[in-house]
Amino acid sequence: MNTAQAAAAPKQIVILGGGFAGVYTARYLEKLLRPTDAAITLVNRENYWVYQPMLSEVISGSLGLSSVVSPIRRLCPRTNLVTREIEDIDLQNHVVTVSPGFRPRQLKLRYDYLVIALGNVTNFHGMPGMLENALPFKTLADAMVLRNHVIRTLEEADVEEDPELRRKLLTFVVGGGGFSGVEVIAELIDFVRAVIKNYLRIRDQPHRSVLVHSRDRILQEMAEPLALFAQKTLRQRGVEIVLEDRLVAATSEKAILKSGAEIPCKTIVCTVPSTLTPVIQNLHCAKEKGKLLTNTGLELKDHEGRVWALGDCAVVKTVSGKEAPPTAQHAIREAATAATNIAAAIRGGARAEFMFEGLGTLSSLGHGAAVAQILGVKLSGLLAWMLWRCIYLMKMPGLNRKTRIATDWMLRLLFPPDLAQTKLDPTSGIQKQHFQPGDVVFQQGDLGDSVYVIEQGQCEVWREENGERKLLATLNAGDYFGEMALLADQSRNATIQACTAMSVLIIPKRDFDQLRQSVPAFGEIFRELAKRRTATAAEPRASASGTAINP
Amino acid sequence: MNTAQAAAAPKQIVILGGGFAGVYTARYLEKLLRPTDAAITLVNRENYWVYQPMLSEVISGSLGLSSVVSPIRRLCPRTNLVTREIEDIDLQNHVVTVSPGFRPRQLKLRYDYLVIALGNVTNFHGMPGMLENALPFKTLADAMVLRNHVIRTLEEADVEEDPELRRKLLTFVVGGGGFSGVEVIAELIDFVRAVIKNYLRIRDQPHRSVLVHSRDRILQEMAEPLALFAQKTLRQRGVEIVLEDRLVAATSEKAILKSGAEIPCKTIVCTVPSTLTPVIQNLHCAKEKGKLLTNTGLELKDHEGRVWALGDCAVVKTVSGKEAPPTAQHAIREAATAATNIAAAIRGGARAEFMFEGLGTLSSLGHGAAVAQILGVKLSGLLAWMLWRCIYLMKMPGLNRKTRIATDWMLRLLFPPDLAQTKLDPTSGIQKQHFQPGDVVFQQGDLGDSVYVIEQGQCEVWREENGERKLLATLNAGDYFGEMALLADQSRNATIQACTAMSVLIIPKRDFDQLRQSVPAFGEIFRELAKRRTATAAEPRASASGTAINP
Repeated sequence: MNTAQAAAAPKQIVILGGGFAGVYTARYLEKLLRPTDAAITLVNRENYWVYQPMLSEVISGSLGLSSVVSPIRRLCPRTNLVTREIEDIDLQNHVVTVSPGFRPRQLKLRYDYLVIALGNVTNFHGMPGMLENALPFKTLADAMVLRNHVIRTLEEADVEEDPELRRKLLTFVVGGGGFSGVEVIAELIDFVRAVIKNYLRIRDQPHRSVLVHSRDRILQEMAEPLALFAQKTLRQRGVEIVLEDRLVAATSEKAILKSGAEIPCKTIVCTVPSTLTPVIQNLHCAKEKGKLLTNTGLELKDHEGRVWALGDCAVVKTVSGKEAPPTAQHAIREAATAATNIAAAIRGGARAEFMFEGLGTLSSLGHGAAVAQILGVKLSGLLAWMLWRCIYLMKMPGLNRKTRIATDWMLRLLFPPDLAQTKLDPTSGIQKQHFQPGDVVFQQGDLGDSVYVIEQGQCEVWREENGERKLLATLNAGDYFGEMALLADQSRNATIQACTAMSVLIIPKRDFDQLRQSVPAFGEIFRELAKRRTATAAEPRASASGTAINP
Repeated sequence: MNTAQAAAAPKQIVILGGGFAGVYTARYLEKLLRPTDAAITLVNRENYWVYQPMLSEVISGSLGLSSVVSPIRRLCPRTNLVTREIEDIDLQNHVVTVSPGFRPRQLKLRYDYLVIALGNVTNFHGMPGMLENALPFKTLADAMVLRNHVIRTLEEADVEEDPELRRKLLTFVVGGGGFSGVEVIAELIDFVRAVIKNYLRIRDQPHRSVLVHSRDRILQEMAEPLALFAQKTLRQRGVEIVLEDRLVAATSEKAILKSGAEIPCKTIVCTVPSTLTPVIQNLHCAKEKGKLLTNTGLELKDHEGRVWALGDCAVVKTVSGKEAPPTAQHAIREAATAATNIAAAIRGGARAEFMFEGLGTLSSLGHGAAVAQILGVKLSGLLAWMLWRCIYLMKMPGLNRKTRIATDWMLRLLFPPDLAQTKLDPTSGIQKQHFQPGDVVFQQGDLGDSVYVIEQGQCEVWREENGERKLLATLNAGDYFGEMALLADQSRNATIQACTAMSVLIIPKRDFDQLRQSVPAFGEIFRELAKRRTATAAEPRASASGTAINP
């Protein structure tokens, strides 16, 4: 049992999720309740709260990593934070199960009152190759990974001789024209434009940024004139905007749209579509479009007085019947309502109903431009941008972060953005990959760096000898290829080209070597195959040892 | 062929390594030579140069990530940077081979003049378990990984119920009492002391920091009174200093010293021993103790006028015959000498001889304390610390970084250090691990999260039933265990304990599942084994399905 539960007297309040809704609920509860009334526990995957409106500024390094997030322990000093994943919610027995830490044992948290504020997640289900090749944009780590990826593409473009690959390296695609997508592409193009002058060989090369949106205009949440202004501004800054189309698939070489259009690129960021977390999906309770159904007191239907649900994972309606949109300002007001009602359940007192109707919307379009629509007034351009900065700076809790953000912004006016690349993950391990028909998996002459197993689809094995291109074999689901170059430590002696959409499992050399050393039977599978291939290749025309004949 | 080589007229200068020696050589060459004289190319793994003296301040977040490094492209704006690994130096044919980028093809760089400044690397060879469990401290990524690891141990200690595991989580061991080790442990203890108050359940728990050094005092490079002062200061701040001993092995649960002493812990940082990079090790040329042998003009022996070697990978002697120590101040002067001589080789002019004798040494001992020994004057305490900050701030090139560092330091005086944890690598993949005799690999009842393959050593399989502990089997090199819990998706039904020193390969559930789905023959290996184990277990006493009987 958890220490939080060991003390008998105070009620146990467990909050799930550390976004605006969860963290602000904890903050309000700390104000409304005495430590003797209740012990508050908050469970979140990260130990920090992300100031989502400013996260995109990490891409360009305008804001430092620690400026856009705030440690939950400091925001809610009286709340016990459990930095783990949530694995299960048991509404019948009032228990939440969280993932193991250093030791492989789950932790069970018993609750008297539960707050579910788990937000949503980006979901690439049914979009082949997206999971492997598209970058999400939700957490601080996502922002860092994107930043470092973009710097890596610039570094490589600067070294690369092949103009086609260089063009791919200098093409950046963002899916989703909501607030998040717009701010990401605006920051991204600001960053690339500012740093490319430091790359001697590509400083004069064109680079390309594409924003793909499914509707007829971006920023659907804002009034049309503002959205059109935003489109014009982004286009002036060099962003191509593709409307009424959307990303449906990706490979390591291109983004594929619903219309059939393909964009050759090495960078895909995707902010849509959103779905609920698996824990919410598995929860048996009243739902609407998958989201948790609540009353105007934010109580979960059929669990009133015990469970509250708020933020992006819940359907929240005001007393006037309007559904609250998934924004920070609404989440904060929902938190206030939920906290008031939990305190009322514990200590008595008046209940609150949710009745916040929203103040307006704001979106940054990169340095010096924004669109704003506040209390009915519409603004665009530099003035809106200054308003954007003022409002979000004010709304950031704590003097510490406010000072850091202001300082970062000041330094950014004086100096160019930083371009140090932090290499985070040198060994990527076993992974999946997707190829479209016609895609080349590897070229004859390439270094052998991985073994491939076909999970779905078909590919052809081609060899070029004396200027002649010859089809050696066709491989199908379940077949392996690429093992010869690894076993013999030589370069690829054939080209592999997908002839249908194809999913493969890639086993990198390092993992392949470790596995075959430690599990000899595993190595045997591939050695047998290689032997058979060599034998078959030798028969018809006694050529060099063959890489790939259908096993 | 590389574009850098495409232009015919200018000489090709290739510099290997982006530390103090390499970057300063490029900077001096940019001043001494016109673009028509020579094209300069610098090859480095990272696109930034690390300001090593301040790197440890990243641990506590005193300095932001971008403050302690500087992009090489901005430091040497006329130099072509190639951000790749160096794989081979061919001194006969004047070609350097660098690793592939996005496409698996190596790049060859032809040179007219070569500068080798590859520094050294931390080497855990012959120290079982160190590669898997000890963190090095050289790059920006190392500093970030360490910072995030320390925050993770605090987060886990705050949740953990088991007092023994909590003590391990709150113990930090640093190997090596040179400048680097001393600064790391000083920063580490400063950080933990500052943030532990935000962890409600462990704020009153003791934490432990241990510095292990092989000699009879730390900071061997400084005068004895200063080193003794440093020891006293560190001890006052709570660091245990273990002298005349050294780390020889590690497991995920403890550090093991040469004396046989063991320190149960979850954090080991190791700054020693250093060795040369494999590229230097494989280079056939004149060497002394593995390092490249040079003359006082810094030319590599037998390759005079063509190849220069400097920094930590070379033996550099002044005209007076004294060997230059591996410090930044020496590297910078070596760079000046080498650059002068390269310019002389291209354009004519006077040659230079290396004659710098050193100005002194400085070491920070954490916030408010340092030791300094400059031009014969010895200083310690606050004054030395202020001197340390002034000197290193002045020596940082560029107004941009100077301003950032000064700002970060100012903010650090006003606010507590940041404690946001950036989770960088959620899936760690196939890896090795080391266990000492008596170590428990997993406990009966744990969740099944990986499969293990024994590479070396022996372990025992124990099961507890009705309060009775029974030895089920002994497993040896080549045996697998842990597959049953994964195949049946249940918890461990036995405890595995090493009975000799044991090395294993760990295949995490995710990789194991992907492999057995895609490579059915791989799954078959383990299914067969599981079947045999169940059969054997069923024979003697018809117990529940057995996890682990010797196959």
